[in-house]
Amino acid sequence: MRIGYQGIEGAYSEAAIYQHYGKNVKAVGYDTFEEVFEAVKKGKVDLGCLPFENTIAGSVVMNYDLLLKQDVFIIAEVFFKISHSLLSHKGNKLKNIKVAYSHPHSLEQCRKFLKKHKIKAVPEYDTAGAAKIVKERNKKEEAAIASELCAEIYGLDIIKKGIESNKYNTTKFFAFVKKDKVPNGLKKEKTSIAFKAKHYSGSLVNCLQRLSKNGINMTKLESRPIPENPWEYVFYVDFIGSIDDENVKLALNEMGTTATFIKILGSYPKGRKEQ
Amino acid sequence: MRIGYQGIEGAYSEAAIYQHYGKNVKAVGYDTFEEVFEAVKKGKVDLGCLPFENTIAGSVVMNYDLLLKQDVFIIAEVFFKISHSLLSHKGNKLKNIKVAYSHPHSLEQCRKFLKKHKIKAVPEYDTAGAAKIVKERNKKEEAAIASELCAEIYGLDIIKKGIESNKYNTTKFFAFVKKDKVPNGLKKEKTSIAFKAKHYSGSLVNCLQRLSKNGINMTKLESRPIPENPWEYVFYVDFIGSIDDENVKLALNEMGTTATFIKILGSYPKGRKEQ
Repeated sequence: MRIGYQGIEGAYSEAAIYQHYGKNVKAVGYDTFEEVFEAVKKGKVDLGCLPFENTIAGSVVMNYDLLLKQDVFIIAEVFFKISHSLLSHKGNKLKNIKVAYSHPHSLEQCRKFLKKHKIKAVPEYDTAGAAKIVKERNKKEEAAIASELCAEIYGLDIIKKGIESNKYNTTKFFAFVKKDKVPNGLKKEKTSIAFKAKHYSGSLVNCLQRLSKNGINMTKLESRPIPENPWEYVFYVDFIGSIDDENVKLALNEMGTTATFIKILGSYPKGRKEQ
Repeated sequence: MRIGYQGIEGAYSEAAIYQHYGKNVKAVGYDTFEEVFEAVKKGKVDLGCLPFENTIAGSVVMNYDLLLKQDVFIIAEVFFKISHSLLSHKGNKLKNIKVAYSHPHSLEQCRKFLKKHKIKAVPEYDTAGAAKIVKERNKKEEAAIASELCAEIYGLDIIKKGIESNKYNTTKFFAFVKKDKVPNGLKKEKTSIAFKAKHYSGSLVNCLQRLSKNGINMTKLESRPIPENPWEYVFYVDFIGSIDDENVKLALNEMGTTATFIKILGSYPKGRKEQ
């Protein structure tokens, strides 16, 4: 099985894929989120796996925007705990390290650790890229902040694990396939939809009421401005239930009268959260 | 009047302050969002002005989290159109430029322009910091992607304006004061609240229904996991109306029975959107 993700080897997305699908899959890295959607549509990969929500940073809105436009179907949600490691050369010691390279967000999350050890933070495009640079430059005083997987891939040592301040840093990924490639017998426990309420007062509440009246429990509700129409909103809802359930079909049917459109984004097994 | 923002001189936040309050205010830059809240609480500045939503990147969730914890009150919403300029040394020409420094998001937004002109993108912490570095290094082949304001502040030329691909890039800022410093006679046209629905099926819809039943029109609805309690959500709602309106008071009062808490974040004049 070939699975597309955004990033280079050792990205947290790649680690999430191995956690969920095991090490026997082929993870294929692409430069951009768009390219992962393209690869899925053109059959270059069997499925795509992209981040959609993070407990610290919120929703990855760019991926929600893409999901709305593309003909794909979510078949899994994958929760992955992000924990940052300080990586440097084999045998190196913490006391030698003066500079750490990483993505600005990761540097920010490890700010206290860096301050305590008087390590200068230097921004890079991504965490795995930082690990690669540190390896290539081969300087004793340099380190990267990246995944444990990067240590393995780039031949670096883990100098210190879990150096982030906020331990509740989990990313939710969605794995998605081309619409005609949804596997048979897929366990559908949760469903994700997008919709736009009609333009009258109370229409959003009417839409949501169709769900609650039919006994459907929402687990996420997010509003997102339409990129070409800023400050007009599309709503993204996750709820418990399968698109094959009678009450779900009924609710979505009823919503049709108060929404200008409804798009089913996927129906998939409930992901396992590890905190 | 002293107004706190996050960033260094020339940040887009500073430009937004001048657009809204004019050039006669004193804009004071702080390293972090937290420090801006602190400065407001301690009276070091009269008000804070921070980004809360961007048409491309979505909500600045960290600031929503802070807003929930702090005793401040929103007194204005400010819309500011983000447009990136390529800045370099006085008299320099586009054809000389080989390298551009900026924040990874800005580099991403100008990717097409950079590709077309064969300019290498190099990540920096922030756009204004990139302008500062370019000025200091004083190399003919180097440029920064930053605000027009940065050209003025750091003594650089605007080589090219509006180099971003997506022209719908607007940030919404909230200006907020200490709770006991809300100005008299403030025109309250919109209100922002945060609430948590009780833990039973349909409770969120019940909360929202209290608004629509009382004729209140929502303009934004956002769910946000509670940082220490991931995957449990706080909802943020903006609506048309003043906290002094009778129907708003009634609605919030009624919501009290289906919400575990409601916090009024502010009530303020409607901001002017320029697209």
